[in-house]
Amino acid sequence: MADPVVDFRSDTLTKPSPAMREAMASALVGDDVFDEDPTIHELQAEVAALFGHEAALFAPSGTMANQIALQLAVPRGDELLCDAAAHIVSDEIGAAAALSGISTRTWPAVGAAVDVAAVESMIRPEGFVAVPTRAVAVEQTHNRGGGGVIPLSTLQDLRSVADRYGVHLHCDGARIWHAHVADGVSLAEYGALFDTLSVCLSKGLGAPVGSLVVGSASHIAAARKLRKRLGGGMRQAGILAAAGLYALRNNIARLADDHARARRLAEALAPAGVVDPAQIRTNIVPLDLTKASLDGPAFAAAARERGILTSVLGPRLVRLVTHLDQTGEGIAHAEAVLPTLLA
Amino acid sequence: MADPVVDFRSDTLTKPSPAMREAMASALVGDDVFDEDPTIHELQAEVAALFGHEAALFAPSGTMANQIALQLAVPRGDELLCDAAAHIVSDEIGAAAALSGISTRTWPAVGAAVDVAAVESMIRPEGFVAVPTRAVAVEQTHNRGGGGVIPLSTLQDLRSVADRYGVHLHCDGARIWHAHVADGVSLAEYGALFDTLSVCLSKGLGAPVGSLVVGSASHIAAARKLRKRLGGGMRQAGILAAAGLYALRNNIARLADDHARARRLAEALAPAGVVDPAQIRTNIVPLDLTKASLDGPAFAAAARERGILTSVLGPRLVRLVTHLDQTGEGIAHAEAVLPTLLA
Amino acid sequence: MADPVVDFRSDTLTKPSPAMREAMASALVGDDVFDEDPTIHELQAEVAALFGHEAALFAPSGTMANQIALQLAVPRGDELLCDAAAHIVSDEIGAAAALSGISTRTWPAVGAAVDVAAVESMIRPEGFVAVPTRAVAVEQTHNRGGGGVIPLSTLQDLRSVADRYGVHLHCDGARIWHAHVADGVSLAEYGALFDTLSVCLSKGLGAPVGSLVVGSASHIAAARKLRKRLGGGMRQAGILAAAGLYALRNNIARLADDHARARRLAEALAPAGVVDPAQIRTNIVPLDLTKASLDGPAFAAAARERGILTSVLGPRLVRLVTHLDQTGEGIAHAEAVLPTLLA
Amino acid sequence: MADPVVDFRSDTLTKPSPAMREAMASALVGDDVFDEDPTIHELQAEVAALFGHEAALFAPSGTMANQIALQLAVPRGDELLCDAAAHIVSDEIGAAAALSGISTRTWPAVGAAVDVAAVESMIRPEGFVAVPTRAVAVEQTHNRGGGGVIPLSTLQDLRSVADRYGVHLHCDGARIWHAHVADGVSLAEYGALFDTLSVCLSKGLGAPVGSLVVGSASHIAAARKLRKRLGGGMRQAGILAAAGLYALRNNIARLADDHARARRLAEALAPAGVVDPAQIRTNIVPLDLTKASLDGPAFAAAARERGILTSVLGPRLVRLVTHLDQTGEGIAHAEAVLPTLLA
Repeated sequence: MADPVVDFRSDTLTKPSPAMREAMASALVGDDVFDEDPTIHELQAEVAALFGHEAALFAPSGTMANQIALQLAVPRGDELLCDAAAHIVSDEIGAAAALSGISTRTWPAVGAAVDVAAVESMIRPEGFVAVPTRAVAVEQTHNRGGGGVIPLSTLQDLRSVADRYGVHLHCDGARIWHAHVADGVSLAEYGALFDTLSVCLSKGLGAPVGSLVVGSASHIAAARKLRKRLGGGMRQAGILAAAGLYALRNNIARLADDHARARRLAEALAPAGVVDPAQIRTNIVPLDLTKASLDGPAFAAAARERGILTSVLGPRLVRLVTHLDQTGEGIAHAEAVLPTLLA
Repeated sequence: MADPVVDFRSDTLTKPSPAMREAMASALVGDDVFDEDPTIHELQAEVAALFGHEAALFAPSGTMANQIALQLAVPRGDELLCDAAAHIVSDEIGAAAALSGISTRTWPAVGAAVDVAAVESMIRPEGFVAVPTRAVAVEQTHNRGGGGVIPLSTLQDLRSVADRYGVHLHCDGARIWHAHVADGVSLAEYGALFDTLSVCLSKGLGAPVGSLVVGSASHIAAARKLRKRLGGGMRQAGILAAAGLYALRNNIARLADDHARARRLAEALAPAGVVDPAQIRTNIVPLDLTKASLDGPAFAAAARERGILTSVLGPRLVRLVTHLDQTGEGIAHAEAVLPTLLA
Repeated sequence: MADPVVDFRSDTLTKPSPAMREAMASALVGDDVFDEDPTIHELQAEVAALFGHEAALFAPSGTMANQIALQLAVPRGDELLCDAAAHIVSDEIGAAAALSGISTRTWPAVGAAVDVAAVESMIRPEGFVAVPTRAVAVEQTHNRGGGGVIPLSTLQDLRSVADRYGVHLHCDGARIWHAHVADGVSLAEYGALFDTLSVCLSKGLGAPVGSLVVGSASHIAAARKLRKRLGGGMRQAGILAAAGLYALRNNIARLADDHARARRLAEALAPAGVVDPAQIRTNIVPLDLTKASLDGPAFAAAARERGILTSVLGPRLVRLVTHLDQTGEGIAHAEAVLPTLLA
Repeated sequence: MADPVVDFRSDTLTKPSPAMREAMASALVGDDVFDEDPTIHELQAEVAALFGHEAALFAPSGTMANQIALQLAVPRGDELLCDAAAHIVSDEIGAAAALSGISTRTWPAVGAAVDVAAVESMIRPEGFVAVPTRAVAVEQTHNRGGGGVIPLSTLQDLRSVADRYGVHLHCDGARIWHAHVADGVSLAEYGALFDTLSVCLSKGLGAPVGSLVVGSASHIAAARKLRKRLGGGMRQAGILAAAGLYALRNNIARLADDHARARRLAEALAPAGVVDPAQIRTNIVPLDLTKASLDGPAFAAAARERGILTSVLGPRLVRLVTHLDQTGEGIAHAEAVLPTLLA
């Protein structure tokens, strides 16, 4: 096997740049378990402000940030609604049930689409059934939904429904930056629509570690104890926060390049019948190999032989993700090689 | 308000008959926590035999029987699939998540229908995602699905899918007796299709208390410890088992009467546009008041004024259930009165 | 092996008497999940009144009654203190942690003794440590503590401590009837000292099934939902409640006979050096075989050969329990035979 | 209030040195969720080798490292024994019960002392009681036990007991480095005595973030999934691992200075009757203010007025911790001032 030429497995694979490393090396720090780390404070305040919320809390992963937010929103045994392909029910090792005791019901996953009327019909007002719906979660952009973007108007409709039923609305916003860039909706506009959000610094933005929970001051105060129980209390975490601040200040606008590259990859692969370029809005390119000559593992193995790393998400589903550590040469190589594997 | 003339709220409301009370009064008993109650043994053996399984275990409720079966089938954090209106995710106070730590994803509930291809598409084979699907549960007959019956061929297809993916198939068979009577499928035929079933003696059959988990000898051996942890270890439970045996031996065939009465009620209410009699297969009559002049609480209150008790399951959803404690007069009264409330 | 002559394994083994069966056979019932069972209502009111509390709730087992009370008293992750041999941490299959998420710390078990100063030193006032103590539980009488009785004055001191720290005081009173009879303390006096109690109808009192949680009206209202989640919602449970009422009204005072018999058994065995009769206050006789010629399993096997059933609680610990189903002949047989096994 | 002159609140407060920052800035990294971070690999291998174990896994906190180890050792509902002041039951927000479902019983905490016979007497062999003891945990050095060190011979005796009963032995070794330095026992000697250990890089050693679970290859392979569920999967965590490697290689031997300083502080305070210097073996100085003129909060406030920060662990308990960020001047100031506050 050749050395990898280009790695499309995930945008979490990016390594900190020299400038980001410099920011880490010179970061002011304190003990964040004592709530005394100035760079963590700066990051938390900056993220809260971006989304127009009162407060934010740093966490070591998106899984923990989501679980903290869900524990704030849903008492043990009560219900969360989300779609059937959401990260919360697909990629968090069952933590919502196993650790947070939250009952989940799901609506069918069709890309990033949200049928607001269908969601509304699933909400159970308290008093009519013994498991009241306390929260609805959406994922923006949607990872298993091919990086799709939920339109602002859909989210506004969902907010109205949530208000009507007194239900908490959470956004798993690991890649909300990509939605912001793709649709031109400000982070504050998104922030205004949700009771809590989780956002990630290491997916797309290039920071090594960290996610944040964003919400009201009272929610975030309660979140500190939940984070400690989950084992997320870190000490001089300002080292990581410095990278996060650098990422926020330098790496959001450039996501447009990743989106353009993803679209071009899709265009190159469209003739093979595995992807519709019109569906590619951000940095994720799902390849549906249902009718292809190779299944997922075989395609990934063949690509790897040619120095191209991909993720196999299902027997006939492969995912390509563009990100800031890929070179123009790597992308060009993939555009040239991948279609030939499916010929 | 008049004294109730007829109570349609639930078939759990039935009271033990004199003969059933006599069976209880003369039951041989022992300490079932020590596994020494002969009548419990007799009931467990009889139920296991009815379904062609090796063993069964008595439990104080259907909720506990379901939770025991699910804990046997699904390791903490792994996944169960069921429909979005299933008793397991609707009526067990979130126990699957809160007590058993089981992650649930749901397919849309449309009566008792099961789209086997859709279920198959939701199953996650191990290795492709971090939350493997370990079990699929169906409900036969389906309570919130209007007492609908899943056709035998559908269940056979589902069994094939479960086998293909190595997934446990559980039946919440609280009212499986009704399906057996409605479709003429033997209990053994149903039993052969599932790894575990829960069945209920107090819904429709008229016993005062009790459900059973049915499965393999090794499953049921493990179930004893799970039952004790949940607080379901009872002592001289043979008193209750005697009623259960009486119910099994005397009250199954007569369910056909309840089904016929439910159908007639539906026919009486059909002109009001709230129910389609062709959909009424067993002893449950759901009234969809979406387009009616009264909403659910108002309709139930009006009926109660006339001595007719109903259940309100949603803002515009009322349920009528027929059972062995209703009289011909009561039914006739309801057939005469209920349509006038919607006129 | 001879047929058993006398069974000392547990007082849970007792079978309902003809009069108790008659009470069950004629009980008025309703659906207790709908809170409509008149005999359950009568039992709950009578038990609440006995202990001077506002309300009580029926449950299928002592384990469930304890878990419900603990869930009322201790938020998930917070702390309960009890002794290291308490039923709660010894005989409930880990439910306090596994189902209720309650952190437990224990003080050393020395019979039924409670060192109130030691307990006080373990209580953690909120604000000084991250796991605040929310409840203290004691067991009266104490099963693994040899049926010992905690003196009233000790409980009064413990109440003062609980008040001083704002901590909930729970009594696992499965055999509180025995303490009442042994020490002549009224049930109301005991009731006044605790925020919640669990009491059992099938240990000693002779009813087939059932325990109750006793507490304030608001606690018991919340308890209904917790009971349902645990799978303890039963339908025509009045059948069981009728037996419980009979037991309460007829079988408390006679416990004095069981206590006297236990004392005589201990006196018969004292020469073998395995028990001190002065420690035997109620109906439990623990035999410490540390220095005996037979270990626990061997002693129990030898006794069984002679028609005497006992419980083995540890490698060198055997327990005898007296109860209302034993005959004078059986007791006399045991008094004659058991000492010879240790000679 | 004066600016702090010296901070004794915790050894977690230390900030990375310039050399440590340089190591972080130049660290090779990869995505550790993909198990591809070379510096994480290097750290894990180095820590495993130090303790003579097969493998190790990095985690964001000691709480998470302990919870992962406990989940490996103790099935949900089964039992862990530890002392009543252990970090596991005192400082992890109830995670052992709330997240891991582990039942805990405790022996009385008397400094770091372990009465092996008493621990043995608490172990429940399987088959005699329904909650089998699966693991025993000790804390070396013991935080709330005043930094005390468990003698090697005691640990060896405990290992024999664990072997005899087939029980897992876990060491919460957050400050095991201090025990190693104080007693001259090698880390490999300690490692050989335990099935799993957790060790901490940010307590005493000066790294900003991180603990590790140490154990067998199979344990650590299973630990990866448990870590992800808890939200501890981090991406380019090699940044943190580089600091950890620096700390391991440079900051262990120097702990002797912290120990000497702690002893001198204790000697300065001994005349006030609040501490016995002979008990001070490592870097923790607990002050027992039971008989002092000031209680804990008042003492801490008075010290803070003079620029000296301390931790209040109880109404009459204050803790001082020495560490590598304190200056000789700061220590001298404390030695001069603190005794005067108690005069």
